Amino acid sequence: MYTPNPSSVLWYEDQMFSNLQAFIESEKPDKIFFLVDENTHDHCLPALLADLGDLPATEVLEVPAGEEAKSPEVLLQLWGALSELGADRRSLMINLGGGVVTDLGAFLAGTYMRGIAFINIPTSLLAMVDASTGGKCGINLGGLKNQVGLFLEPAAVAVHPMFLDTLPKRERISGFAEMLKHGLIADHQYWEELSDLAIEEHRPTLEQIQFSIGIKKSVVERDFREAGLRKILNFGHTIGHALESLSLQTAEPLLHGEAVALGMFAETYLSEQHAGLESDKASQVYKVLRTHFRCPVPQFDQEQVLRLIQADKKNDSNRLLFSLLNTIGHASPNVELTPAKVREALNFLRVHFNG
Amino acid sequence: MYTPNPSSVLWYEDQMFSNLQAFIESEKPDKIFFLVDENTHDHCLPALLADLGDLPATEVLEVPAGEEAKSPEVLLQLWGALSELGADRRSLMINLGGGVVTDLGAFLAGTYMRGIAFINIPTSLLAMVDASTGGKCGINLGGLKNQVGLFLEPAAVAVHPMFLDTLPKRERISGFAEMLKHGLIADHQYWEELSDLAIEEHRPTLEQIQFSIGIKKSVVERDFREAGLRKILNFGHTIGHALESLSLQTAEPLLHGEAVALGMFAETYLSEQHAGLESDKASQVYKVLRTHFRCPVPQFDQEQVLRLIQADKKNDSNRLLFSLLNTIGHASPNVELTPAKVREALNFLRVHFNG
Repeated sequence: MYTPNPSSVLWYEDQMFSNLQAFIESEKPDKIFFLVDENTHDHCLPALLADLGDLPATEVLEVPAGEEAKSPEVLLQLWGALSELGADRRSLMINLGGGVVTDLGAFLAGTYMRGIAFINIPTSLLAMVDASTGGKCGINLGGLKNQVGLFLEPAAVAVHPMFLDTLPKRERISGFAEMLKHGLIADHQYWEELSDLAIEEHRPTLEQIQFSIGIKKSVVERDFREAGLRKILNFGHTIGHALESLSLQTAEPLLHGEAVALGMFAETYLSEQHAGLESDKASQVYKVLRTHFRCPVPQFDQEQVLRLIQADKKNDSNRLLFSLLNTIGHASPNVELTPAKVREALNFLRVHFNG
Repeated sequence: MYTPNPSSVLWYEDQMFSNLQAFIESEKPDKIFFLVDENTHDHCLPALLADLGDLPATEVLEVPAGEEAKSPEVLLQLWGALSELGADRRSLMINLGGGVVTDLGAFLAGTYMRGIAFINIPTSLLAMVDASTGGKCGINLGGLKNQVGLFLEPAAVAVHPMFLDTLPKRERISGFAEMLKHGLIADHQYWEELSDLAIEEHRPTLEQIQFSIGIKKSVVERDFREAGLRKILNFGHTIGHALESLSLQTAEPLLHGEAVALGMFAETYLSEQHAGLESDKASQVYKVLRTHFRCPVPQFDQEQVLRLIQADKKNDSNRLLFSLLNTIGHASPNVELTPAKVREALNFLRVHFNG
């Protein structure tokens, strides 16, 4: 019988193999269910299975790659598949993939038979430094991201940089946005270090990944259910999520990290105007973001963006609340702004990001 | 921002009105969503609203009466409805109905935006003495009861016997089965008291309802996630759930309590054979169950019942585990039996229950 961890265990690099084997030997699951998408099925699952020893009976559940898999329809199919394949309370689920797979798989495992054990193995940089920690999981609903979900920690998270080599460059750069965010909200020196990183050329080091996870973990442990402090992790996400939602309905959707980079650009402007961020520091942020993120700002209707921000889970009804930078390395949650000020920031983004 | 209670608060009788008002004044929900079914919409909601003072904006979500509402399809509609009606993290959900409404509503509230506050107001005897306590919630999946769900306590449970007067006699007797079970597994004297109750004529007293809730609560508090002890609450349910599942596919489905009464009859036989229950005590149980429950034993295929028992969440794969009575007032979980012995008990039920 599985009882969820209040805080999940992290396994790094080749510890993954030995710890996973030890976990299986001690918990004795009767069956292991791997949740993968098309990509991780081909590029990550073989490497994982090759270095694991004997396993109990296994089943592989595959979902389409991309955000669309985080839908109620796919969730229903997966609940049904687990049931038909005889998953029970002694089964173990291993979610192998990016944030879509780990978010979806954690919610699936957390609700099937009122919760079975699961382990997340993030394979994208974004999932390693962000989705892997903090226990948020869930699905999207009618264009609204993570509208249904839980706060629920996996039994363990295994972070192995080898999976990053299977990742397209654009995905790697997308994940880098969250790392930059960690520096901006919590550690000036880390921000400086990352600013110089040639992320276009190669992946970050394991130490850098660990440092980002450490920042996120320490914020989350102080405020698991996001009563206040945890909202600082939302820097760049209020506007970013809205742009991402809109772009998902177009032919050229933004990646999550790209949307967050655009959001950080606009919210750095808000930080400069309303949270005391000095203007030379703001300029430095603009420059770094423009250097690494070459995506065009998508066309958007300002009023639609405002409506999406108001529908954001983190906002009380009818208030526009932002997490803003007071300086590089420190952020404050719950700064309330008027619609006019948000429009100003959206204009600034449109004019200056690609400019 | 709402943080779930580890153990929920109980409000009895007219405390419901004053405590609910005080809760609303202190938590200041921006909107209240009532989940009802057709029956509680007409017969319970007016009485509740009449005695509550001013409320913030309210919305009423109505589902069809009956077990069919605990389906993934209805859940999806309700998630969508909450989203469209602007429910956010400061909204409050009040589930007003029998076990179907409270089970479904709790899962809905517990997963919407990763969990919003909710209060259960059970209106059936069954929901008051059973579903109201213990934090189990969820939906059915392809004929399997509660296959998807959570362990999650409401902010409060309000138990008001006035709602029992809106209940058909058959429903009242069904709820009585769980009360008898509480006596059988935990309190000999309570069992004796209930055995003499003319449940056909009138409802149990508030004190009796409280006593049943107290028994359930004390078991649950010692084992919230059902690692062991809590399984004794499952007495009568292993066979009962299987019969209930089969009967749901027929034109004359059993009520939950009726199925549990049949299950207790068969499992009392197993208790006599394999758990040390003395035969004069077993005879007393058979007699009381036959007196109160006049439902005919449905036709069933023994092998189908066995397969359903094996698929039960509480069973490890391929083992048949039962909670059985050692005497009246004491039960033990995890008694393993062979298929042959279960078949014997099913035969005993078929021959002797209506005999």
